[in-house]
Amino acid sequence: MIKAVEWKDDALVLLDQTRIPEETVYCRLTEVSDVFEAICSLMVRGAPAIGITAAYGLYLALRNFSGESPQFFAEMNRQIDYLASARPTAVNLRWALESLRQALLPHQDEPTASLKDRLFKLARALHEDDRQRCDLIGEHGQDVVPESCRILTHCNTGALATGGIGTALAVVYKAHQRGKKVHVYADETRPVLQGARLTVWELHTAGVPVDLICDNMAAALMQQGMADLVIVGADRIASDGSAANKIGTYGLAVLAKYHRIPFYVAAPLSTFDFNLKHGKDIPIEMRNNDEIRKVFNRCLITVPDVSCWNPAFDVTPPELISGIITEAGIIRAPYRENIQKVAHKQLFA
Amino acid sequence: MIKAVEWKDDALVLLDQTRIPEETVYCRLTEVSDVFEAICSLMVRGAPAIGITAAYGLYLALRNFSGESPQFFAEMNRQIDYLASARPTAVNLRWALESLRQALLPHQDEPTASLKDRLFKLARALHEDDRQRCDLIGEHGQDVVPESCRILTHCNTGALATGGIGTALAVVYKAHQRGKKVHVYADETRPVLQGARLTVWELHTAGVPVDLICDNMAAALMQQGMADLVIVGADRIASDGSAANKIGTYGLAVLAKYHRIPFYVAAPLSTFDFNLKHGKDIPIEMRNNDEIRKVFNRCLITVPDVSCWNPAFDVTPPELISGIITEAGIIRAPYRENIQKVAHKQLFA
Repeated sequence: MIKAVEWKDDALVLLDQTRIPEETVYCRLTEVSDVFEAICSLMVRGAPAIGITAAYGLYLALRNFSGESPQFFAEMNRQIDYLASARPTAVNLRWALESLRQALLPHQDEPTASLKDRLFKLARALHEDDRQRCDLIGEHGQDVVPESCRILTHCNTGALATGGIGTALAVVYKAHQRGKKVHVYADETRPVLQGARLTVWELHTAGVPVDLICDNMAAALMQQGMADLVIVGADRIASDGSAANKIGTYGLAVLAKYHRIPFYVAAPLSTFDFNLKHGKDIPIEMRNNDEIRKVFNRCLITVPDVSCWNPAFDVTPPELISGIITEAGIIRAPYRENIQKVAHKQLFA
Repeated sequence: MIKAVEWKDDALVLLDQTRIPEETVYCRLTEVSDVFEAICSLMVRGAPAIGITAAYGLYLALRNFSGESPQFFAEMNRQIDYLASARPTAVNLRWALESLRQALLPHQDEPTASLKDRLFKLARALHEDDRQRCDLIGEHGQDVVPESCRILTHCNTGALATGGIGTALAVVYKAHQRGKKVHVYADETRPVLQGARLTVWELHTAGVPVDLICDNMAAALMQQGMADLVIVGADRIASDGSAANKIGTYGLAVLAKYHRIPFYVAAPLSTFDFNLKHGKDIPIEMRNNDEIRKVFNRCLITVPDVSCWNPAFDVTPPELISGIITEAGIIRAPYRENIQKVAHKQLFA
């Protein structure tokens, strides 16, 4: 399986996802500012992968720190705020960084060298933890995947988006491994085309049958009875079950409801924001107009100065979600109650 | 106003729509095979514009014909079948050609020269007829456009798609001219991007406020209360009111229904196929995979050999349509009954 994020030879190695499928280029990062930039530019994306990247980034920010412990913690807090600001919607980013802080707090009396060592080990453990959670999501997801199944998905939620085999795509991979006859329809996912570039490439590489469609073809696909199931990922889930995910997800959920097709969200518990009561409270990142106006930042598709509306995410309300596939099992309605029950399982370390 | 199709200096002049907005290039056509190719390649598109183009194409096919009248009619029938095969879904194409044949039939005894002359005059009259019908569609549409209105549209249905000011965009243009405060959200309309390339360019040129969005953003736009009205065009309407239009239209109709937003189709009566009982009988043109895989046939966005599903159109059932805006007024449910009432008004010449 491809590795989106890896720690190798004392550096963070990221697969540059902005260049796939044209080129498979790995970038070696040793400075926190490069990590911040890599997250902003979508060199690395996918909520869990961003969290892991930020954890390693925090270590990079502090590994050459020369002050005493109290200053170390002050600097760490500053760096956490800096890294968390790279993508405001993905809660895993903040969650990963908070997890590290919480795990270090009991060790405030230790010398800086020991704290640095702990921080590095925590980042690695967070990575391994995500790998295992991906496997579990894939396993639990089998309950909703029949022996023969055409699955519609959006954006990229596979190995490229996580520290393991993915979230929504973990369910696909596990089904494929078990010999189920799965066929994926991948939305291209404008404007950044994560579906066309990343999901198609991943599934091709893994030998899973896939057809690429434009986002606006999903409705006709459902109308013609060609999709049995929709599975998508999430970037943040509020405690009422509302799920923020890549723009276009909400539309799929409405269409699935209309066509009576099950619509599942697959995400690790680190995606849940228990402090957020409602989906409407999730901050939505607005991105640059040129993402729409220029494909791959070079192929201009419209009048150069046309105004655009470019939200990176939308929010799907719980009433449109058949279930949320997590590492702790599938959460179903009533969401507020059932989400509360798994809150303690979110903890890491 | 821009002219997509024009007769000038003894030739058919088409604005090459595959090159807009980058370049404004007009092509001069004098052979029917070039006209056929121009329709297939989408140099000219939009159901009414295709019909007019084909009418001039039929004249080009026959203007150098040297046989007698019976042979002239045999050759004309052959050329009609040839031209009509260029785009199987757009019924205006077949309708325009059939109209010319019907209008010539009473003159079978006339010499070939006279038939050629009649054919040319009929093509010009058909063009002028479409121009007038566009104006009427724009006028009738005012009944559903409030003084201040945010209109979501799909594909291109303006001057570039017709012989006049358009169908769905005619409604926008007339509202703008009357001083109504209209703001358009234009879907980019993958895979061929008619919205991003053509609609944005047309509206920009005409000074109508417009925002470009990706197709998958329409649902979030509606969810946030930013769209008051959806107006789209049509390529063929069955006698039950089902409307085939650019892929993505059906999804918008479902989303509009869910959000209780009025959804209107604007089309001339030549778009109605009274012989077709149901929407499911409308043939849907499947197009090349490379339309999806390569933006503008050059910017590869995915794995080069990935399989795609690329229907050019989808069919919106009548229960999702608030009304069909035609040159004879707005047709509403019950559609079968009300469509039958206007059948005689479809006639040309």
